Amino acid sequence: VRLRGFADLATVARAHAWIDGRAASLPAEEVELDAALGRVAAAPIVAATDHPPVPRAGIDGYAVRSGDLVGATSYDPVSLTVQPPALAIGGGAAALVAAGAPLPPGADAVLGFDAAQPAGAAVEAVAAVAPFAGVDRPGQQLRAGSVVAPAGRALGVRELALLAALGVRRVSVVRRPRVRIVIAGPKEAGAPDAHGAALGALVARDGGDPSVERAALRGALGAPPAGSTPDLVLATGRTGTGSDDDAAPALAAAGELALHGVALRPGASAGLGVAGGSPVVLLPGDPLACLVAYELLGGRLVRRLAGRPPELPHRACDAEVRRKIVSAVGFVEVCQVRLVDGRIEPLGVFDFGGLAAASRADGFVVVPAALEGYAPGARVTVHLHG
Amino acid sequence: VRLRGFADLATVARAHAWIDGRAASLPAEEVELDAALGRVAAAPIVAATDHPPVPRAGIDGYAVRSGDLVGATSYDPVSLTVQPPALAIGGGAAALVAAGAPLPPGADAVLGFDAAQPAGAAVEAVAAVAPFAGVDRPGQQLRAGSVVAPAGRALGVRELALLAALGVRRVSVVRRPRVRIVIAGPKEAGAPDAHGAALGALVARDGGDPSVERAALRGALGAPPAGSTPDLVLATGRTGTGSDDDAAPALAAAGELALHGVALRPGASAGLGVAGGSPVVLLPGDPLACLVAYELLGGRLVRRLAGRPPELPHRACDAEVRRKIVSAVGFVEVCQVRLVDGRIEPLGVFDFGGLAAASRADGFVVVPAALEGYAPGARVTVHLHG
Repeated sequence: VRLRGFADLATVARAHAWIDGRAASLPAEEVELDAALGRVAAAPIVAATDHPPVPRAGIDGYAVRSGDLVGATSYDPVSLTVQPPALAIGGGAAALVAAGAPLPPGADAVLGFDAAQPAGAAVEAVAAVAPFAGVDRPGQQLRAGSVVAPAGRALGVRELALLAALGVRRVSVVRRPRVRIVIAGPKEAGAPDAHGAALGALVARDGGDPSVERAALRGALGAPPAGSTPDLVLATGRTGTGSDDDAAPALAAAGELALHGVALRPGASAGLGVAGGSPVVLLPGDPLACLVAYELLGGRLVRRLAGRPPELPHRACDAEVRRKIVSAVGFVEVCQVRLVDGRIEPLGVFDFGGLAAASRADGFVVVPAALEGYAPGARVTVHLHG
Repeated sequence: VRLRGFADLATVARAHAWIDGRAASLPAEEVELDAALGRVAAAPIVAATDHPPVPRAGIDGYAVRSGDLVGATSYDPVSLTVQPPALAIGGGAAALVAAGAPLPPGADAVLGFDAAQPAGAAVEAVAAVAPFAGVDRPGQQLRAGSVVAPAGRALGVRELALLAALGVRRVSVVRRPRVRIVIAGPKEAGAPDAHGAALGALVARDGGDPSVERAALRGALGAPPAGSTPDLVLATGRTGTGSDDDAAPALAAAGELALHGVALRPGASAGLGVAGGSPVVLLPGDPLACLVAYELLGGRLVRRLAGRPPELPHRACDAEVRRKIVSAVGFVEVCQVRLVDGRIEPLGVFDFGGLAAASRADGFVVVPAALEGYAPGARVTVHLHG
């Protein structure tokens, strides 16, 4: 490849097949609910009990027997004796309850403060209440056996809050893949680069646990990090056809270079292989090509290991093409686009970087290898940048 | 309020006006590019130079003078002498270059390896190249003076990569607001809860730096944390009308209770005030009401302090209502909805929690106080859950 160019490029489909054959969901582990945000359910999480488990006050007010208040109005209030909430509510009695508290036995409704007038040791009800008014009935929110989160679901704020309300303390989640990121660095020594922070953020988004180091790949693959073996290595830079492009030879020397050169634009110099028992993804050094190859190749591996759906994780929407999108047949092309009045326009020239255009883009379109682009008026799927 | 109910509720608009009057963007600070992910530009970030600053090879190959190769084909190749890339390219010469390297003086194009045949100390060109073919021209990606990120933009992966490519090492960003989260805890002692993790994640999403503690509000407001003064306090729980609901009195005792009770459903028992010089937002203890009050009130404060747009940060889309959404006039209601074939359906009953429904929702609709809901066929804005 070096000084010769890529003789033949693997299709993206072949690269995906290689990835899919090497990455299964990691084993499960138990974590405390407080530490489960963003973690992926290893198996369906099912409600063990009804929620709420017993009748509860749904509002602050007085627990009452609705039958006592038939016909109550502000002109003809019904007086009830206030008693402690631990006792059963008998005829003509009421007890102060706070929202969320179990309903005292005998009560079947909660009278809100807007309809209650305190009067010494009694309270006057100035409105009737229907049975179960102000009451959260057993199973009203969730029945025992309901699925709170299917396997593969990343637990969000709402799932965590619900599990907490159900009394769940620990959940079984997929272990987070340890992802070793090796930055060969930009070609000009000393120039700043943001590959590490950017890739780390994307790996974390996909459920991985990133660690970043700057090193030459040849040395790094021979010297795995002190701690535990990584589940995946992402290496950036030196994947091209120049004389200093030693990433692919380094991987071949350290293990196996399964493929180098993918019919993907930008990102064609990406490679895949194995070293030290871990899959290795070679990402181009060009910043935009690196990000694109991560999204389509590296990220797929991270997501599979993390137990997530392997597809692109971006929110997608359908939109109409406003200005022609041009793409080379034989290549999967990732075209940065802008939304203008709900329609999309391609941005910039992508053979030569296009990072500036990408930073102004609202999302991207993945043009399949069989197509030479999209004509105005076509409806396409846009993957929206976060 | 306690044991009486809320006599009158502040409108959400009034709560927003209070927030907007107390929260301006925090001062700027300089950070290294590596630490700038997710940080908010304090001022427009402008490219100081053209990008690229000089003509560069856009592909790996040989730097050439395009005029030398007029008429070259595989039947009639043109032979060029290969010389070191540091020298100027004279007539009949070529030099190996890697993508991203500065173009040697004299060259005006790069011949890719697919059109080049090495032959000892020479190379044979088997195709002509147009002037500037394979060359990334100065300013082609970005002109000096272009805005890379406007003030208030949260820097993403693409902006960071572009700034790195421009040679930027440090950027001026808005200081992250320190947000002290005080969890009064659920009413049943010892029950697990996920308020802390959930609120922490939402604060981080909005650009804040959260710290979580579990404490009674009365004690906590009197004893600020050892380190620096928080920019904002979020307190959860005990905001209602029950006998143990002491959050509002605690805030009034520690400083100022500006308002308690907001015409928002769920979330009506929220409150706002000031203690120890910091704004304080009281969030209900009910998990869903807490999340909703955070999104509409607390989050707005965090976002303003962080220099972000104060509006809801969720991705929004327009959708048609498929099943009637019911809402009480006079209340801003946050209705959890599900997308079914591109149309929305409300989920569950929200007076009494509705957390289980919320965890199945795709997003939510904010029904303004003036409306009693939306009829089927209405088009509304849906805020999508992340």
